[in-house]
Amino acid sequence: MIIVLKAGSTDAEVEDVCGRIERMGYRAHTIRGELRTVIGAIGDDRGKDRLKSLESLECVEAVQPILQPFKLASREVRREATVISVDGVGIGGTEIVVMAGPCSVESREQVFEVAAKVKAAGARILRGGAFKPRTSPYSFQGLGESALKMMALARAETGLKVVTEVVSPSDVELVARYADILQLGTRNMQNYALLQEAGKSGKPVLLKRGMSSTVEEWLLAAEYVLSQGNRNVILCERGIRTFETATRFTLDLNAVPLARELSHLPIIVDPSQATGRWQLVRPMALAAVAAGAHGLIIEVHPTPNQALSDGAQSLDFESFDRLMQDLRRLLGALAKQLA
Amino acid sequence: MIIVLKAGSTDAEVEDVCGRIERMGYRAHTIRGELRTVIGAIGDDRGKDRLKSLESLECVEAVQPILQPFKLASREVRREATVISVDGVGIGGTEIVVMAGPCSVESREQVFEVAAKVKAAGARILRGGAFKPRTSPYSFQGLGESALKMMALARAETGLKVVTEVVSPSDVELVARYADILQLGTRNMQNYALLQEAGKSGKPVLLKRGMSSTVEEWLLAAEYVLSQGNRNVILCERGIRTFETATRFTLDLNAVPLARELSHLPIIVDPSQATGRWQLVRPMALAAVAAGAHGLIIEVHPTPNQALSDGAQSLDFESFDRLMQDLRRLLGALAKQLA
Amino acid sequence: MIIVLKAGSTDAEVEDVCGRIERMGYRAHTIRGELRTVIGAIGDDRGKDRLKSLESLECVEAVQPILQPFKLASREVRREATVISVDGVGIGGTEIVVMAGPCSVESREQVFEVAAKVKAAGARILRGGAFKPRTSPYSFQGLGESALKMMALARAETGLKVVTEVVSPSDVELVARYADILQLGTRNMQNYALLQEAGKSGKPVLLKRGMSSTVEEWLLAAEYVLSQGNRNVILCERGIRTFETATRFTLDLNAVPLARELSHLPIIVDPSQATGRWQLVRPMALAAVAAGAHGLIIEVHPTPNQALSDGAQSLDFESFDRLMQDLRRLLGALAKQLA
Amino acid sequence: MIIVLKAGSTDAEVEDVCGRIERMGYRAHTIRGELRTVIGAIGDDRGKDRLKSLESLECVEAVQPILQPFKLASREVRREATVISVDGVGIGGTEIVVMAGPCSVESREQVFEVAAKVKAAGARILRGGAFKPRTSPYSFQGLGESALKMMALARAETGLKVVTEVVSPSDVELVARYADILQLGTRNMQNYALLQEAGKSGKPVLLKRGMSSTVEEWLLAAEYVLSQGNRNVILCERGIRTFETATRFTLDLNAVPLARELSHLPIIVDPSQATGRWQLVRPMALAAVAAGAHGLIIEVHPTPNQALSDGAQSLDFESFDRLMQDLRRLLGALAKQLA
Repeated sequence: MIIVLKAGSTDAEVEDVCGRIERMGYRAHTIRGELRTVIGAIGDDRGKDRLKSLESLECVEAVQPILQPFKLASREVRREATVISVDGVGIGGTEIVVMAGPCSVESREQVFEVAAKVKAAGARILRGGAFKPRTSPYSFQGLGESALKMMALARAETGLKVVTEVVSPSDVELVARYADILQLGTRNMQNYALLQEAGKSGKPVLLKRGMSSTVEEWLLAAEYVLSQGNRNVILCERGIRTFETATRFTLDLNAVPLARELSHLPIIVDPSQATGRWQLVRPMALAAVAAGAHGLIIEVHPTPNQALSDGAQSLDFESFDRLMQDLRRLLGALAKQLA
Repeated sequence: MIIVLKAGSTDAEVEDVCGRIERMGYRAHTIRGELRTVIGAIGDDRGKDRLKSLESLECVEAVQPILQPFKLASREVRREATVISVDGVGIGGTEIVVMAGPCSVESREQVFEVAAKVKAAGARILRGGAFKPRTSPYSFQGLGESALKMMALARAETGLKVVTEVVSPSDVELVARYADILQLGTRNMQNYALLQEAGKSGKPVLLKRGMSSTVEEWLLAAEYVLSQGNRNVILCERGIRTFETATRFTLDLNAVPLARELSHLPIIVDPSQATGRWQLVRPMALAAVAAGAHGLIIEVHPTPNQALSDGAQSLDFESFDRLMQDLRRLLGALAKQLA
Repeated sequence: MIIVLKAGSTDAEVEDVCGRIERMGYRAHTIRGELRTVIGAIGDDRGKDRLKSLESLECVEAVQPILQPFKLASREVRREATVISVDGVGIGGTEIVVMAGPCSVESREQVFEVAAKVKAAGARILRGGAFKPRTSPYSFQGLGESALKMMALARAETGLKVVTEVVSPSDVELVARYADILQLGTRNMQNYALLQEAGKSGKPVLLKRGMSSTVEEWLLAAEYVLSQGNRNVILCERGIRTFETATRFTLDLNAVPLARELSHLPIIVDPSQATGRWQLVRPMALAAVAAGAHGLIIEVHPTPNQALSDGAQSLDFESFDRLMQDLRRLLGALAKQLA
Repeated sequence: MIIVLKAGSTDAEVEDVCGRIERMGYRAHTIRGELRTVIGAIGDDRGKDRLKSLESLECVEAVQPILQPFKLASREVRREATVISVDGVGIGGTEIVVMAGPCSVESREQVFEVAAKVKAAGARILRGGAFKPRTSPYSFQGLGESALKMMALARAETGLKVVTEVVSPSDVELVARYADILQLGTRNMQNYALLQEAGKSGKPVLLKRGMSSTVEEWLLAAEYVLSQGNRNVILCERGIRTFETATRFTLDLNAVPLARELSHLPIIVDPSQATGRWQLVRPMALAAVAAGAHGLIIEVHPTPNQALSDGAQSLDFESFDRLMQDLRRLLGALAKQLA
């Protein structure tokens, strides 16, 4: 931490602050500038908020952190990229993984039809909502366990792996019984009880970025899972909330190379949620992979205009096929390939 | 809902869309403008997302909702303001309620000292964190049940009521045993499992606004609690996330008169969280009450520069006393008074 | 500036960076922490971007400024509050100044009627748009010089001072001939040619905050005016752009006590622009004054539902009267009074 | 426009509003729903704010626009994409144009060296700042006309075209004498005097998106230029302001396919400004082109760590070469090519 003192601080004030820093277990190192005195507090300050409380002193202008607060998620702790194996499908290397399926599981027929089609087009993982966190209590909330069963049957039939969201700590065990990857949604990125429970399950976790979370907070959320001994965290950028209202969210692709620089964890992108408009899904999916994403998660529905949720952002089979063809060509140019 | 068709839509397309609307159970009403045709879908469209899925049709430009999506929280359902009684302390009328106490409960001595002091200054409700949702897993996470017990003892001694946060559905019963009001924090505003569990408890719920939630989403979160039969929801504005970094959050006081216009629920303000700087707490507390807030929740600590969390935004006793004196004078001018 | 090196930097890298810092004219002071080395660059770094360019070195993680970049606007340069005299009306002291009038000047009758009414209610300054910066080229752009003449006549009749916006450097001389205060609008807060021209005019300048500008950038914009030798800058908070769409902008009242802490310049608030809804103007005006604002600027129109611009946020005479009565009562409680 | 009435509006109120709509020159069409009455106002409502003023009536809940407010910029007015010829270099087709050069022109040697290198690597247009709009008045403001002359000489030597920013209406003529494209910067996107002057010049205009402007506002700013009879507007996405602070801005690539859907104008992307970190420039440049951008504008400096401005986001020659090689491969996969 760097403690910046106000202009005109007296020697007695500088000494007092240094004393406080040392009593908290850090070494204090003072630099007197022309206009300001700053004090470096030397020691591992991650997660230690007491230094921050020095801001309540009259003579302190600001307390600025120097270290990034995450550890296990960081490149400093682990230089090489993490590749997560989901029952044989690797995520995090040069093979790009596509996850696809309906926003909500609506029926056995729907799931089976989508699964067959997205597999034929090149997807390796089936997505589908069983428990839906909805802004309104009057919206369709998902079919629950029966949807989980339908997806497990579709897996048995197609060989696709299954990713689905879990919204409550008490459901983790149930969902983990059916799914290959536990998805933690954007509204639950800072639901710490859920993060810890998912961590304990040992299952791969797909951690969506909070719609108003910084990349730093996202990596700290990953840290909650990692600190339970679960190394299998897949980051997923899905759009952030901004002043722009023409799209549902603003896809933050800066976050892809940035997260790859800061962390060893794999990162995928959800262009469906991020745009809210199916017309934008294909270009943004290609852009995501060009920016360095390790995979994509995409909403596909047999008849989007009749979907029970998120029809406006779902691709039909024809559009999904076209996307996959374009993606293959793009991957060739990037010296990558589909998983 | 209003369905806006693209320019140049054919009669066949208009008919097709009308047919779909009617098959979903609405009446369709077409207006042909000079440049656009719009179709009104008549019926109660709250929570019905299927109409929204029409946006995936090529000929549809946009589907715009007309009704506000919340019901039980709305002024249309209940014209008169709701006043919630917390064991005899009314929140929502012309008596302004002050809740005060430390960010985290740190020790029995700390809680008892703060409780005595804030009561003497005019607070009616003691706040204090037992379970702390922290961005970093390495930060102090709260003392848990022992903190709850300390607050219950402080209540017995002072007569103050107790408000404290609950972060997990499985803790609701435990926290409800000790607290008079269950606080749902900003990171959990869309934790629907928790909202429902808090709703079932029947206890008054203090619902903090999500740091990036619109007022509409906030009232929908209240709707999750209300729809469990629990009418006792207190809204709490606590700052939203914006591009400004000089304060921790941006206190959105527009939301106070707006929420009072849209909803019958009481609304209080947290100037400590919203500013992150104790120097701004007093002016923003006064501003909140001038804007029409029914109460305040304020962080107070015996020695802010030694606090285990949020010291920079905590008032010491002297500053809190000064705030309460200014508040009394202000309330006189507004024809209100302290509860 | 504090230069933070990456973990594992070598001694040679540290020396290289120190050498670069010294060749740029600063003294370098190194602190070796447990995990990071940081280097303080000692000297006046305001406005010196070359240090920032060190971020392009491989071994540098970040370059963090320590000093606030504004000088003339800052409390450090001038401790006592600036009170600006607008032809005898003081802005910045304990007398609160109300500016009121129509969004756009529409006719001589309209201006005279509004001027008489707002004066009777207690306003001291007449606002009115002559040159309107409109988002769309098809919107009403204002009556230009003839509107300026109407306002000058209204001043002669009522004694109210006149504030009006100038949108182009080449219009500064013209507007300064008629107005007592030059208003620089939110879209022009970083129009540096305009800031400098307004600075040179010597007239008091009402500087609206850019709708997405930080408080720091706002004070730097003031610095452009001040550095022309013009000390008469009045800051005006008018709402910032956030994700919330239920109000036109989000009024950032945190900025009021914050700007008063950082700067000696007076600050007023525009609740009309900030909310976009006349129903919210009265509570937010009171809140602004409770937060410490030195004045208010408010849109008033004889018949808001027929206004050529911004009718939805304009008060009629009755609502304005009620606001002024409430304001007087509030000021008594704050030991202040109307100018 | 759609006028939504409050619940419980009386027949007299509905008739009153219809009367007002018709007196403003529109036809009124009423739809009575189960819970709300809405009235369509039929006619061309773009830029007509008087309907919006109906929101000030007690019985009106909201006035919602139906039409997009831009005309000349819209796909409805012109279906086929506009390709702008800059002295023979086409922007807007399947040939991707790269503009590159230093943030600020610092010396003749610097410009000539950069021009030769970026030309060799495949750029067609030289960028460089002569007039710099700087947040602080103490920052380097550019060399002015002498910088323009240096760029014109570099054009004579290399055949590269020249793009440079103009910041004041009175400088348009001067800059137009030397430059092939006039750049309007993000802080000036709503500087209407400047937009109109640039429009009158007839020169191609590179219109950067305001850092907090919606896509709709951006197209309305283009409309100011277009309505002067100047068809040559190139849109440039350069990052928007959000809560994320790890990058300088958030590059909004959603805006690329969205602007292409709404408008016929070409759109390019500036990954240097948008990220603020040279490490992110290459991946985001590739992503921009994959998303459908017609070109790129990139900061290149011989020695970024000594740059007078924006060194942290400038590529050196080696990084720029690598980017251009990757770009060529990518374009092949997209069935496009470098201009």
